[in-house]
Amino acid sequence: MSVSTVATAPSICAPLPVLGRDVTVPLVTGGEVTYAALDYAASAPALQRVWDDVAAYAPYYGSVHRGAGYLSQLSTDLFENARRTVAEFLGCRDDDQVVFTRSTTDSLNLLAAALPAGCQVFVFETEHHASLLPWRDARVTYLDAPRSPRQAVETLKRALADREPHGPALVCVTGASNVTGELWPVRELAAAAHAHGARIVLDAAQLAPHHPVSARDLDVDWVAFSGHKLYAPFGSGVLAGRADWLREADPYLAGGGASRKVTRRTDGGVDVEWHESAARHEAGSPNVIGAYAVASACKALTEAGFDTLVAREQYLVGKVRDGLADVPQVRFLSLFGDDAPRVGVLSFVVEGWNSSHFAAALSAEYGIGVRDGLFCAHPLVRTLLGNDPQTQGECGSPEAAPGEKSLNAIRVSFGAGTPDEHVERFVRAVKELVTDGARWNYRTEDGRCVPDRSA
Amino acid sequence: MSVSTVATAPSICAPLPVLGRDVTVPLVTGGEVTYAALDYAASAPALQRVWDDVAAYAPYYGSVHRGAGYLSQLSTDLFENARRTVAEFLGCRDDDQVVFTRSTTDSLNLLAAALPAGCQVFVFETEHHASLLPWRDARVTYLDAPRSPRQAVETLKRALADREPHGPALVCVTGASNVTGELWPVRELAAAAHAHGARIVLDAAQLAPHHPVSARDLDVDWVAFSGHKLYAPFGSGVLAGRADWLREADPYLAGGGASRKVTRRTDGGVDVEWHESAARHEAGSPNVIGAYAVASACKALTEAGFDTLVAREQYLVGKVRDGLADVPQVRFLSLFGDDAPRVGVLSFVVEGWNSSHFAAALSAEYGIGVRDGLFCAHPLVRTLLGNDPQTQGECGSPEAAPGEKSLNAIRVSFGAGTPDEHVERFVRAVKELVTDGARWNYRTEDGRCVPDRSA
Repeated sequence: MSVSTVATAPSICAPLPVLGRDVTVPLVTGGEVTYAALDYAASAPALQRVWDDVAAYAPYYGSVHRGAGYLSQLSTDLFENARRTVAEFLGCRDDDQVVFTRSTTDSLNLLAAALPAGCQVFVFETEHHASLLPWRDARVTYLDAPRSPRQAVETLKRALADREPHGPALVCVTGASNVTGELWPVRELAAAAHAHGARIVLDAAQLAPHHPVSARDLDVDWVAFSGHKLYAPFGSGVLAGRADWLREADPYLAGGGASRKVTRRTDGGVDVEWHESAARHEAGSPNVIGAYAVASACKALTEAGFDTLVAREQYLVGKVRDGLADVPQVRFLSLFGDDAPRVGVLSFVVEGWNSSHFAAALSAEYGIGVRDGLFCAHPLVRTLLGNDPQTQGECGSPEAAPGEKSLNAIRVSFGAGTPDEHVERFVRAVKELVTDGARWNYRTEDGRCVPDRSA
Repeated sequence: MSVSTVATAPSICAPLPVLGRDVTVPLVTGGEVTYAALDYAASAPALQRVWDDVAAYAPYYGSVHRGAGYLSQLSTDLFENARRTVAEFLGCRDDDQVVFTRSTTDSLNLLAAALPAGCQVFVFETEHHASLLPWRDARVTYLDAPRSPRQAVETLKRALADREPHGPALVCVTGASNVTGELWPVRELAAAAHAHGARIVLDAAQLAPHHPVSARDLDVDWVAFSGHKLYAPFGSGVLAGRADWLREADPYLAGGGASRKVTRRTDGGVDVEWHESAARHEAGSPNVIGAYAVASACKALTEAGFDTLVAREQYLVGKVRDGLADVPQVRFLSLFGDDAPRVGVLSFVVEGWNSSHFAAALSAEYGIGVRDGLFCAHPLVRTLLGNDPQTQGECGSPEAAPGEKSLNAIRVSFGAGTPDEHVERFVRAVKELVTDGARWNYRTEDGRCVPDRSA
């Protein structure tokens, strides 16, 4: 443990209470242990506060928008207040729209469907598939993986300078990598985009749970994030930002709620007037509980204070990095260098181990839940692993015998609800597995590496 | 109350426990009363059983599909089991797919995005906007409102006979009208569709909460429904049915989870292999709690027994119809005639009353939550009201002074959680309002008719 980590340790706040903090799971080697949820980057547990808010509201749930009853009006107010809470959380401008979606993936698919005609899209190949793939009919320029934040900005500037100077363009960039946890130079990328007449959307799925995000301060045009990574796993996400493209686009979903007026024409067809507010893209009954849960999480994180949350998370990052610094078999994956600023997301490979095997042993022998695979960012992980892009890597755990070259990686991730003990147990477990090997045999079953109970 | 209703009353089961059954709301005239949620057709309260299942699971929530930890694997199993439960609930065929969506609207938009090239769509103008509007690029034939189930079948047959005989076609039809509650002749419409080489999707949003639905028995190709109308308001819906069109379509959302393999090409582009299972259309982290809640509701309704549930609901329908039979100012809206079989959904207008005003008085003076408006089925409601389609009817409560001609209607709807008292209170309230008028003054504020507290 480094001196600096020790120095900051005393001022570290306690973890925020989350659901599942007392859940125990069986170990293949016998006995039970408290589950260490270290897959926050995939999906975080609900904050206790979020759950309590949802539980308190649930009996008052009612149909929103067009119900005349007391609970319908209460629910409508609560839903629209949730929108305002999210706008505040994201530092939105006064005329920004906040659209409730189901996830970051959904948010970016919505924005992709709202691109003006002829829009050019610029996206780094290092992005999560949710940022890499939704652009469908647009002309997409995939940018090579940069090896420093500065190179990222230079790469973008060059690409934008080469574009046809007229017509709309959009840059899509992550705030923090879902693989390496590294922070991207969002403010600088936004400045580059705007200097070249392009707009920028921030994929804040991995950033918003860990850092304050302000659309105004970062000068990004849109922000997308997911409730289920922000301690509110109730099926809602957010796209917030500039209203103009959203207002001018075809409705994302066609149906009730998005339609203001529908009329049968005398020629047998149907005319539709669509709303111009966020409702335009929210057809169908909204997920009120999901939106309320997101707003509750936004409030809880703001009240806990990001300064404190960031300090605690950096302390845990330090524990992992320092704790494994003397284990040469462990190689962390990084684009910008080992010391680059990052959130509580770290991916690594272990020399001589298949990552699925290693992750399965962490689960079965230590009660630790991490993730193995390519993390829905195939080009990035293959680049970092140095694998042949043509032959490797289905999403999930490829079937490969223990001991083979790394086809995929292991990711450990944590956040506001993670107690020291989970990270300490993880460091100890990695060291023990590297030194002593697994105590059990494993085999692949239905694509999962699992303990072999036939032995 | 009719003799037949009295005769069946003793065998009626108790309502199923729902959240909010003890919630009290203030009356404008003083005091509080238990809230009577009579807007089930918009969104139903959660079954207590569904809530209990969600609450029991929530601490065990984990990231699905690619997490190595115990809770991730438990959550993955639970999510896939939810799919199987829904398949069973809907009487799916062995090779059908069950896709979790966010709502019926989302389900039908998904199917619309999966239509084969050149597909013709046939839809009655009487459908909910969710069924009427999603078909976008397809050639849509809107069918005139039929005045009997038989006429519906004849109308469809004629339209299909006129179509170009080759190429794909889809019929979209509701199982029960969200306005009149009337049952549509689904089996006969399916036979007609198939006889003409077309496929059929059943909008079961209003049917599935009230009646057993079997894709196999009805011989429909797809079924769509919403969790939030099926006592599981946690942001999930379902599209279930034939796999072929779904498997051949572009992914509904592009992102992680739907993509099996993503590769950067040497020319700078990106190649994607998509999944062929339901995951193809479920990119992003699934709403596990929502899917689990839907499955829990399916089980709860099946275990309660639809025979009993239908009997109870018909008893409540009888209470409304018989209770208001001697109030000539009340006119129920109906396509197929007052005695047509229906679920617990009834719309009506009250002579001399603006519907928004009437609904506001039911809420403020009786604690009853109904709905007023055009119920996201504008062409149907305008037809039933006899209004000029060119001038009337925004979705929601139009601003109109009390006493004007009906621009919109009032809808009362109920289901498995509704106690007798709610319906009895509703009948009493309607009679009192018709006879004595409202006891309070109302005014329009932000598009809502509300008690005027300035008086």
